[in-house]
Amino acid sequence: MRHIDDSPITRDGNSLILAYDHGTEHGPVDFEPMPKSADPTHVFEVGRHDAVTAIALQKGNAEYYRAWERENDVGDGAPLLVKLNGNSNLAKRDDYYSPKQCSVRYAAEELDADAVGYTMYAGSLHEDEMWKEFRDVQEAARKHNLPVVMWSYPRGKGIQENDEYTGQEDPDVVAYGARLGLELGADMVKCKYPGTQAGWQQVEDAVSGLKTVMSGGSKRSDDAFLEDVYSTIAVGGNGLAVGRNIFQREDPEGLLDDLERVIFEGTDPAEL
Amino acid sequence: MRHIDDSPITRDGNSLILAYDHGTEHGPVDFEPMPKSADPTHVFEVGRHDAVTAIALQKGNAEYYRAWERENDVGDGAPLLVKLNGNSNLAKRDDYYSPKQCSVRYAAEELDADAVGYTMYAGSLHEDEMWKEFRDVQEAARKHNLPVVMWSYPRGKGIQENDEYTGQEDPDVVAYGARLGLELGADMVKCKYPGTQAGWQQVEDAVSGLKTVMSGGSKRSDDAFLEDVYSTIAVGGNGLAVGRNIFQREDPEGLLDDLERVIFEGTDPAEL
Amino acid sequence: MRHIDDSPITRDGNSLILAYDHGTEHGPVDFEPMPKSADPTHVFEVGRHDAVTAIALQKGNAEYYRAWERENDVGDGAPLLVKLNGNSNLAKRDDYYSPKQCSVRYAAEELDADAVGYTMYAGSLHEDEMWKEFRDVQEAARKHNLPVVMWSYPRGKGIQENDEYTGQEDPDVVAYGARLGLELGADMVKCKYPGTQAGWQQVEDAVSGLKTVMSGGSKRSDDAFLEDVYSTIAVGGNGLAVGRNIFQREDPEGLLDDLERVIFEGTDPAEL
Amino acid sequence: MRHIDDSPITRDGNSLILAYDHGTEHGPVDFEPMPKSADPTHVFEVGRHDAVTAIALQKGNAEYYRAWERENDVGDGAPLLVKLNGNSNLAKRDDYYSPKQCSVRYAAEELDADAVGYTMYAGSLHEDEMWKEFRDVQEAARKHNLPVVMWSYPRGKGIQENDEYTGQEDPDVVAYGARLGLELGADMVKCKYPGTQAGWQQVEDAVSGLKTVMSGGSKRSDDAFLEDVYSTIAVGGNGLAVGRNIFQREDPEGLLDDLERVIFEGTDPAEL
Amino acid sequence: MRHIDDSPITRDGNSLILAYDHGTEHGPVDFEPMPKSADPTHVFEVGRHDAVTAIALQKGNAEYYRAWERENDVGDGAPLLVKLNGNSNLAKRDDYYSPKQCSVRYAAEELDADAVGYTMYAGSLHEDEMWKEFRDVQEAARKHNLPVVMWSYPRGKGIQENDEYTGQEDPDVVAYGARLGLELGADMVKCKYPGTQAGWQQVEDAVSGLKTVMSGGSKRSDDAFLEDVYSTIAVGGNGLAVGRNIFQREDPEGLLDDLERVIFEGTDPAEL
Repeated sequence: MRHIDDSPITRDGNSLILAYDHGTEHGPVDFEPMPKSADPTHVFEVGRHDAVTAIALQKGNAEYYRAWERENDVGDGAPLLVKLNGNSNLAKRDDYYSPKQCSVRYAAEELDADAVGYTMYAGSLHEDEMWKEFRDVQEAARKHNLPVVMWSYPRGKGIQENDEYTGQEDPDVVAYGARLGLELGADMVKCKYPGTQAGWQQVEDAVSGLKTVMSGGSKRSDDAFLEDVYSTIAVGGNGLAVGRNIFQREDPEGLLDDLERVIFEGTDPAEL
Repeated sequence: MRHIDDSPITRDGNSLILAYDHGTEHGPVDFEPMPKSADPTHVFEVGRHDAVTAIALQKGNAEYYRAWERENDVGDGAPLLVKLNGNSNLAKRDDYYSPKQCSVRYAAEELDADAVGYTMYAGSLHEDEMWKEFRDVQEAARKHNLPVVMWSYPRGKGIQENDEYTGQEDPDVVAYGARLGLELGADMVKCKYPGTQAGWQQVEDAVSGLKTVMSGGSKRSDDAFLEDVYSTIAVGGNGLAVGRNIFQREDPEGLLDDLERVIFEGTDPAEL
Repeated sequence: MRHIDDSPITRDGNSLILAYDHGTEHGPVDFEPMPKSADPTHVFEVGRHDAVTAIALQKGNAEYYRAWERENDVGDGAPLLVKLNGNSNLAKRDDYYSPKQCSVRYAAEELDADAVGYTMYAGSLHEDEMWKEFRDVQEAARKHNLPVVMWSYPRGKGIQENDEYTGQEDPDVVAYGARLGLELGADMVKCKYPGTQAGWQQVEDAVSGLKTVMSGGSKRSDDAFLEDVYSTIAVGGNGLAVGRNIFQREDPEGLLDDLERVIFEGTDPAEL
Repeated sequence: MRHIDDSPITRDGNSLILAYDHGTEHGPVDFEPMPKSADPTHVFEVGRHDAVTAIALQKGNAEYYRAWERENDVGDGAPLLVKLNGNSNLAKRDDYYSPKQCSVRYAAEELDADAVGYTMYAGSLHEDEMWKEFRDVQEAARKHNLPVVMWSYPRGKGIQENDEYTGQEDPDVVAYGARLGLELGADMVKCKYPGTQAGWQQVEDAVSGLKTVMSGGSKRSDDAFLEDVYSTIAVGGNGLAVGRNIFQREDPEGLLDDLERVIFEGTDPAEL
Repeated sequence: MRHIDDSPITRDGNSLILAYDHGTEHGPVDFEPMPKSADPTHVFEVGRHDAVTAIALQKGNAEYYRAWERENDVGDGAPLLVKLNGNSNLAKRDDYYSPKQCSVRYAAEELDADAVGYTMYAGSLHEDEMWKEFRDVQEAARKHNLPVVMWSYPRGKGIQENDEYTGQEDPDVVAYGARLGLELGADMVKCKYPGTQAGWQQVEDAVSGLKTVMSGGSKRSDDAFLEDVYSTIAVGGNGLAVGRNIFQREDPEGLLDDLERVIFEGTDPAEL
């Protein structure tokens, strides 16, 4: 890891990543609750909120984003985090895998990325292959001086068939995945929320100051969602990567305002 | 995606692609209804109709095309779209796949291509491998400043074995495939007609202005065929890729005239 | 395809290729009927007959050939067609495949080849892999300005398990294989004789003037053999690739004289 | 092998390697007995003991280590041995394998490594693949003038299913693994302690002076542990690679002092 | 093939190769009959006998050899033949394969090799893969002007399951393997002794003057061993590759003297 406190994708040491790769990962069905969210420019606009320190896009939308910035003269939009791998759920696979659809060179030179991201499925039959891809990604990112965010999502047969683990949100599993981010040279890890603050504490204990951002969380009320985020911040977490919870709303401004206070000011949601 | 309205393969924002790769995909059997269509130069001539904004050829015929142009001094023929992958139906495969038989470098430097095309079988066991090939194709095409057309054909075991889908023409499937074109950086997608205008509307809703061209369609009457094309144009579609429906005719001029009016002038076929 | 009428491996538009790769493909057993044929220099001498427009050799014998030319100061021997792939029948495979044992660069720069050849087994489980290898071969050959001959031999499980085909000599199969030569960018295809002149006509109809040479043919009398060759020449074929039928003879001069008249002068064997 | 007596990772010809890759290999569970050991900087400090001639780290921690040195101005810490491959035990595999997660180039140029290490699982279904990776690692290391340490751990189906062997600690197996280090060009091998001095003698007999370090050893008393180390030194061994036995202790100074005397001075532990 | 009569690894056209890769292929067990043979320097010394025209070593021992020469100022030792691939018998494989553990570049530039060797298992499921590796080896060797010796050992399922063959020493099998050496561009082949002089004659008939050396032979008396060697020399063979029969002897001088007379002077052992 490198220290990335002076990177565009952090603010006061923390991050709020607006992730918009659902068209790849789940398909247009994810846009149905809010049809205009199918239009990337709608989400690009949402990303202009001050709370957002990075917008995470697959290659095609990243190209679109840079064109949109040029054409609309929108000034400082959110820094761009190019997600380098991804997958569709159309495919049938023997176990989890996410092919690399964008090179670091392209992200750096053609997309002027501010950071890159890569999903690692430790526990999959394809884990070893993904390590090798991550190696090349990480080293190329160093060459281009780009922070590397690991979407650290342990899952697959190695987890499912191991009686010691309860699943993807088992704190032991999440913490191990996060540790791999440290060991393999990521600068930030994005991890599943393991359900409790104690679980997140395990994550923090495992990574020795490596940046961590919480992913997703259950579809509960805003209050419960903010509580989860706060519970990670309170024990050293560095923020959140969020997608549908934001762009599926008619007006995400309020929630972004609240997240801004929780993530960057450490405000207890009970005081909002 | 990039904007390609100023590309040779579009005219007033739309396209009519004359696809002639049936010798590869199906073999000489496709020429039996019109034996002279086995001769590429016959089809090259057809492509000189003003309606045609691109002729799509595999490498060998693309070489032939450029030689034919030089030798016959035919002036401006149709722009050349080199199809980079393809397959024969002689092979036995575990699932759909289409090997790359032409490099982008060769298409650009030796064939002077105006655009390149790549077939993507999302839903196949080989989907992930094709993503990686498409990545390299797309990035090399950017380097050579060539538009990239994705033949987006979701099919294979991931579709067949998924009870949520009715097959390759399920609008949910077609729209997801089209969205992948946007996410992965294509400049145009070629999609199966999903049977209804509402289905095509789903496609358009999923791609945020990415160019779309309809593929094939059933072997119905000219009127029904033109209706289908018009139904896509009317909701934002950008045209048609057509093969046998043109070159298997004794005289394709009339149909090309009609397609020109529908695609580039938006004329309702009922008014032709 | 490119026009290769001015290539050393054609004469008046046609070719007679003396193929000598049986040591690779079948092993020394093929030399038993004529033991001296095991000695490549014996065959090199045979290749000096005017009828021969190319001698096809695997890499090791091609090295030997060039050394023999230098050491014996034999003047103009037959042009050298380096066969780039091949296989032994010692191996056990799941389906037909022929590994590449010589690079185009080596053939061009070190062996001073006049042309290169590649065997394509369309219909095999390995067809797709062979397409990719052929792609690289073809493009490298263009770079070195060498004609590319495709040994187009559709076979394997895709053919065997397809009830529509009767086997490797089914004219539909042979013609499809030949068409692939055109589509993939070969300059000449070498095809099995499909048994009848009508069958070869199908081949010619499929390739639009691409050079074709007949391969092998059954072990019949000289008259029958010459008849087969003539039957292909008469409908547009461009000649013959022949191996054992020549080098297994004590004195192949007579047959070569006859083949010269049939192939390059179009003489009906009945008039010889 | 090359002679590495003048390398930073040896002292008077011997080595004590502090290995800290347990976060990769076993996950955070290995830090539970001594929670502060999860913090790499704690272990970096331990590594400053004079007895330590190298600290072995995976890429991410190696980056961390170099940053820690710069930021803390700690003077001469332990030389850095970058471990180039590793694996998590989350994955499910058909047999042992350890993917390469760091290139030699990165280790040399970006991490300023003093040596590199690679785990070889001879006996695994993946042995042949690992030979090829080791080949490239070894040759790249030569280019950068870095010593190469092979973690030589024969295991997997080839060992398990061979009735001649009793397992990973069978002296015949350990000695064969060590010999492979010599044959393949390692400069030092790290081997399992085969249980007896006679067993280690077999190792030494097999490697003709190649540096050997003992790995792990059973979790016995300090006295027994030191005895094992001494038993290898006494017959030509060159030291120890140790991890948990050191960093899981509250105060490892005492044991390191003792190891220093045993390894570098050849002191019999009975005399400590 | 190239003519290698002026190569350091031949003398008067013939060769005696001292092969010492048993530590790789069989492990330390091969040194048990003569423990000092585990020490490479012992064998390096043996190699100084005038009869030896090449010593064949795996990479690590080749490094050791060059260091030994420098450090001991031994003058002209045996020329170095670097064996580029090899395998351990610890591994479990589906069929015979021998991974490449040394690059030609490394052998040429760093080891100053006089020749390179590669084992080819025709008949194995991995035969095709080995052809491709041999291709690259052979072409790289040409670039560095190094003779290429093929250890031509047909074996594996293609042989075992073929009722026409009696096994690895079937003269038809051995001769086919030797022929592949010629066809694929080797400069010398090392073949199993097929049991009879007539069998070796078959080998010679198949290779048209390509250098051949006999491998191993059964563990019979010296007289019988010399008889076998002589029987190959008498029909055109070029010598012997020998390992255990030499270095497992307390004093190999006598046998080397005899071999020298048989191989280089063509003396009938009956006259020794």
